[in-house]
Amino acid sequence: MRAIVLGSAAGGGVPQWNCRCPVCTLAWAGDPRVSPRTQSSLAICVDGERWLVVNASPDIRQQIAATPQLQPKALRHSPIAAVLLTNGDVDHVAGLLSLREGQPFTLYATADIQHSLKDNRVFDVLSAERVSRPDIRLGEPFEPVPGLLATLFAVPGKVPLWLEGDVVAIGQEAETTVGVLFEAGGKRLAYVPGCAHVSGSLRERLDRVDLLLFDGTVLEDDDLIRAGVGSKTGQRMGHVPMRGDTGSLRMLSDLRIGRRVFVHINNTNPVLVDGSDTRREVEAAGWTVAHDGLSFTL
Amino acid sequence: MRAIVLGSAAGGGVPQWNCRCPVCTLAWAGDPRVSPRTQSSLAICVDGERWLVVNASPDIRQQIAATPQLQPKALRHSPIAAVLLTNGDVDHVAGLLSLREGQPFTLYATADIQHSLKDNRVFDVLSAERVSRPDIRLGEPFEPVPGLLATLFAVPGKVPLWLEGDVVAIGQEAETTVGVLFEAGGKRLAYVPGCAHVSGSLRERLDRVDLLLFDGTVLEDDDLIRAGVGSKTGQRMGHVPMRGDTGSLRMLSDLRIGRRVFVHINNTNPVLVDGSDTRREVEAAGWTVAHDGLSFTL
Repeated sequence: MRAIVLGSAAGGGVPQWNCRCPVCTLAWAGDPRVSPRTQSSLAICVDGERWLVVNASPDIRQQIAATPQLQPKALRHSPIAAVLLTNGDVDHVAGLLSLREGQPFTLYATADIQHSLKDNRVFDVLSAERVSRPDIRLGEPFEPVPGLLATLFAVPGKVPLWLEGDVVAIGQEAETTVGVLFEAGGKRLAYVPGCAHVSGSLRERLDRVDLLLFDGTVLEDDDLIRAGVGSKTGQRMGHVPMRGDTGSLRMLSDLRIGRRVFVHINNTNPVLVDGSDTRREVEAAGWTVAHDGLSFTL
Repeated sequence: MRAIVLGSAAGGGVPQWNCRCPVCTLAWAGDPRVSPRTQSSLAICVDGERWLVVNASPDIRQQIAATPQLQPKALRHSPIAAVLLTNGDVDHVAGLLSLREGQPFTLYATADIQHSLKDNRVFDVLSAERVSRPDIRLGEPFEPVPGLLATLFAVPGKVPLWLEGDVVAIGQEAETTVGVLFEAGGKRLAYVPGCAHVSGSLRERLDRVDLLLFDGTVLEDDDLIRAGVGSKTGQRMGHVPMRGDTGSLRMLSDLRIGRRVFVHINNTNPVLVDGSDTRREVEAAGWTVAHDGLSFTL
């Protein structure tokens, strides 16, 4: 199994178009301590030819340009055989609009997410003749590309921002936010780019995986408030912090996990600064902070 | 008036994600004869501070990264004060999804286009409190950013691909495809990135402008068929060819226009190859083939 982090940032990317928080300011200045990062996406392949893209970020065109494995090999062709969505957030679905141009592929998601997309006619640029959109049930393994087994599982999350009503339930384990367990050749990779808190059932899921790519949106629950760029907590956005008694660092520390990697990292998160104390703290806890293009062979 | 071509390519950009037509093949190979191009967008400013972006392409994040004038100057800020849409095509509206993050701006479009967007809840990421969406009537001048007068006019076009029904009317002059006349300091710029044919009324509109940025999607009506990448004619896509008796080169040749520039150029169009016979032919006819970052001061 080969996995490539196409985009390691949360929604907005690094730098974010309208932001000069400390991390974005370094990125705009081209400071080598902060690598620019595109928005959350992962590519996985087993047979060396047909790739699954997990979440279609708004930056997908740029991500394909940076990833020779995903570039066309014939007049009209793409190695991207399938796309899988873990939620309906804009940073995970907007890139579907860039996958038009008559190219056949399969779009996998839960019925809940598929329904949200079908309600938006703009996604009809993916014609029904070329792009099938099967509903995937939680807990039922399927094979999105040859040789790769995928199983969706509910994680504590929330509905996408654009579907929020007056009351927003956070932390429910339903079909709106899922994680994925990938299996091939006896190896297991868990992908959880969004997670509101680390529940007991999630801990069970993640125990003994060879590679975990996990929600690294915020360092602390009040990152955005501290940075002065917003009023929302990590919790309100559906993202568990790294630090704290119920943070991911502590809550996942005793699990037997081969390698731990943070993905979906928000521009406000100080772990993005190479060589910073925060980066060292997270690395000392056994975690890697993903950058675009980081790849793994399992 | 300052104008910057943010993106000079048609939908898909150059190279296009799933294409190895002759032009895309050169672009994938990094051949210096074909500059990579992002999707159709223009930025305009008069006061040096507040910019109007005309059409929000899927590549807008990358375009902002390449354009210092559009980068934030404060903690949360953007010089992009307004966005104007000339139609509802994906290559002109998908970038709206990247302009989320709580940033106020004004989104101008005809009632027809506004209605199409409102029907798609995914665009609710632009919250109504921060992003107002006024309907603009054809022929009524408005001031999208200080000092800049804009007037929309109907051009022969078609509805966006994602709104096509069983019967597709092409070439009607309605609210679905518009051109824009910009005026400041006694200078006039006409922006017409999509146009199905050059009508008499359009010729009248474009006569005596100082700068024309015009639909350069296809060289000939059957570009895509010749390239073997599709069955649609330029006409069917709502784009007048450059060449031919009713092509833009001939139909606009006798007008008094200060400078003529092709924009919205499809990846299949051989004018994209620097130094090619086709490029020389178009340049000999008095036209510039736009590249990303091309800028004008009027």
